[in-house]
Amino acid sequence: MPQDRQQLLVTSLRRFVRRGANDHVRRLVEKARAEDVAAALSELMYREARSVFELTLIDPVSAAGIVAAYESDLTELIGGLTGEQLVPVFAELAPDDAADILQELDEDLRAAILDGIADEEQEVVEELMQYAEDSAGGIMSPDFFALDKELTAREAIVALQENEDAESAFYVYCVNEEGTLVGVLSLRQLLMRPPHTQLKDMMVSDVISVPVSQDQEDVARIVAKYDLIALPVTDEFNKLVGIITVDDVIDVLRDEATEDMMLMAGVGDEDVALASTIGAVRTRLPWLLAAAGGGLGAAVMIGFFEGELKMRAQLAAFIPIVMGLGGNIGVQASTIVVRGIAMGQLEAGKFLSALWHELKVVAIIAVICSTLVAGLSLTMSGAAVDMAGAVATSLLVVMTLGALLGTAVPMLSHRFGIDPAVATGPILTTAIDLFGVLIYFLIAKAWLGI
Amino acid sequence: MPQDRQQLLVTSLRRFVRRGANDHVRRLVEKARAEDVAAALSELMYREARSVFELTLIDPVSAAGIVAAYESDLTELIGGLTGEQLVPVFAELAPDDAADILQELDEDLRAAILDGIADEEQEVVEELMQYAEDSAGGIMSPDFFALDKELTAREAIVALQENEDAESAFYVYCVNEEGTLVGVLSLRQLLMRPPHTQLKDMMVSDVISVPVSQDQEDVARIVAKYDLIALPVTDEFNKLVGIITVDDVIDVLRDEATEDMMLMAGVGDEDVALASTIGAVRTRLPWLLAAAGGGLGAAVMIGFFEGELKMRAQLAAFIPIVMGLGGNIGVQASTIVVRGIAMGQLEAGKFLSALWHELKVVAIIAVICSTLVAGLSLTMSGAAVDMAGAVATSLLVVMTLGALLGTAVPMLSHRFGIDPAVATGPILTTAIDLFGVLIYFLIAKAWLGI
Repeated sequence: MPQDRQQLLVTSLRRFVRRGANDHVRRLVEKARAEDVAAALSELMYREARSVFELTLIDPVSAAGIVAAYESDLTELIGGLTGEQLVPVFAELAPDDAADILQELDEDLRAAILDGIADEEQEVVEELMQYAEDSAGGIMSPDFFALDKELTAREAIVALQENEDAESAFYVYCVNEEGTLVGVLSLRQLLMRPPHTQLKDMMVSDVISVPVSQDQEDVARIVAKYDLIALPVTDEFNKLVGIITVDDVIDVLRDEATEDMMLMAGVGDEDVALASTIGAVRTRLPWLLAAAGGGLGAAVMIGFFEGELKMRAQLAAFIPIVMGLGGNIGVQASTIVVRGIAMGQLEAGKFLSALWHELKVVAIIAVICSTLVAGLSLTMSGAAVDMAGAVATSLLVVMTLGALLGTAVPMLSHRFGIDPAVATGPILTTAIDLFGVLIYFLIAKAWLGI
Repeated sequence: MPQDRQQLLVTSLRRFVRRGANDHVRRLVEKARAEDVAAALSELMYREARSVFELTLIDPVSAAGIVAAYESDLTELIGGLTGEQLVPVFAELAPDDAADILQELDEDLRAAILDGIADEEQEVVEELMQYAEDSAGGIMSPDFFALDKELTAREAIVALQENEDAESAFYVYCVNEEGTLVGVLSLRQLLMRPPHTQLKDMMVSDVISVPVSQDQEDVARIVAKYDLIALPVTDEFNKLVGIITVDDVIDVLRDEATEDMMLMAGVGDEDVALASTIGAVRTRLPWLLAAAGGGLGAAVMIGFFEGELKMRAQLAAFIPIVMGLGGNIGVQASTIVVRGIAMGQLEAGKFLSALWHELKVVAIIAVICSTLVAGLSLTMSGAAVDMAGAVATSLLVVMTLGALLGTAVPMLSHRFGIDPAVATGPILTTAIDLFGVLIYFLIAKAWLGI
């Protein structure tokens, strides 16, 4: 829906709710797509959104569609409702969506909803809730379309016509009598062969699948690499237990990319960052405290050179540029490496070649930057020649250090199983603050002969 | 393919190529998936990869599969081959892949290949090459499966069986006699109705589609929002001209996320960043020069306070912490906003509420950080009370400034149509360098009475 029509939906909903024009609200929701209504609700104020949603409860299918598409904090929208109100909605949700959402609700409401839905559904949902949230099991759907490999094409088509749950079936998975995944077919292939052909004679038997425990990032990488629409998930006995469809993978990819950026800047995950004040403070503070630690360390370090500073006060003027350029080139190097690791382009085995590449790059950049800064500081800020020389030499050393640390810290964290996006920021900042200042003053001392 | 099997493929290919065991290479390539071979080639040395690829040319279908799946710089792999060698490969490529790759090749080779492939194919490819690379037209495939809405379900199934190009058809698009897109059906829906039902009586007529000119980021957002497997693309007369499948969108999403991170750190796009030294220098240098400009400005600024520095040399010691914390909180704020904009969660209309949220967060964080720093600098680095007070006050002001700039700069660039990921980094760094120093020294002057 184009942005202006989306905005119109938001303002109309708001107006109707304020007026208490409930029928208008219902009609608007009925006509719009669930995804658009969900997006509109997340732009409304908390109370308005809640009122609109309560009006949609009259049609559980539509309410379930909105819940499934809602991308902001769901507890705000449905957290205050009763189990009785929500049971019909959860009965309409896909079991994997239901399991994900239930885990966010508080315990009483969760129990009330689970008790309310049909026993069979409850069992499926509870089973799904046992898988780790970021594993293949945690994002898979148990609604897949699997048939015995001994069936014929004609029988398969009849089965497809009779199975209501196969709504989003693009592939037919073939299993043997133990339920083991043995092959796959597209719906179109099913139509291409004579009706009496057995599935086992037409299926592709080299199926790409993942175990339930596989990390969701790996799942996303596999789907992206092989251009899959759906990926079957198997248990420890290679029995087919679910499928992951590409739309779930898109969500994973978006989340992971966001997560990496957010972690590198020390802002935790974005829902927290944009939602509650206290939550944002809690996730952002540690990273800033690490930076404060580095800064205090630098202060102590500079304290050792108070005598030199008294003799040449201009020394202080170049502290920001040395630390700024060292820090910036470190951020550049680490961003390349963190993203390269996330995209699967940089493996631990490429550590030395990445370091070597970065060394060549920083050599050129550092020479250009330090020459330029030395030249400009001689002319612009009236620095003496020895001072300009000291600054240029420090820039060469500190920028090289920044680039090498920026490459090494994330590569080494990755090798030791630590998420490079988490570890890199604070370590890098602190290290460059401390060593940068020390190197600068030691080099200046030598150049200026003080 | 698990990592160890992938590694085995790499080492086996390398060993066979070095030994000149060409038959072994061919057999290995034949048995493996094109995506795995492509991934292996990008890990081999340039010459080795080229040798393997030349051996695969004997089977153009397999060579085309490798080319389509190759994610590193393709010009390295095929740039040196002749048009004659490549024509059979390009004849097997999907037209949209062919168009994308041809645009990367040099002009002579491109012309030779275009001349070599069949006229009909050539026309399609040349048409595709006219669309902007990052538009819907640039990523769409012209191979879609569309049928006249007057046909019956039975006729549609026959058409599907006869149409070889519909390999990846998951939906049937319905058009009227002018070729205008009027509806859509899933293959399964086709099977569910009596054979004589006309498509127009079973299709969904409210189809989500995009114009050829639509930006690929919007395309990705639409596919993600509505959980689509394929999105039809229409020309200015609403005529169906192509489809974008979800696997292309996945590539867009991965690229855009990477691009945002890379741009924010000023490292351009990642292929450049990881490949050539000169390319990396060229993309990274501008951002560092902006930082150098900010640093030099700060140096000039500090120069104005040389008298004060001579009297209280300790003033220099706290420059890093004031600038570090101001810069870091600015990066945090801008990362949240840049990503929020990219994910479609922050619209221009939310400017004030985002600023207000950030203000609350920074108020708490700045009070905690400045109290802590003041306390520690009193005890640890032996600062006098007036100095600690000056540092704490500066931190309060500079951190607030950093947070507000970090929020405002990307939001305002977005409103004025500038990519927030590009503009934010340099503006933010320079501004905080300059104003941070100025604010710190002015506050210190007042507190210390010098």
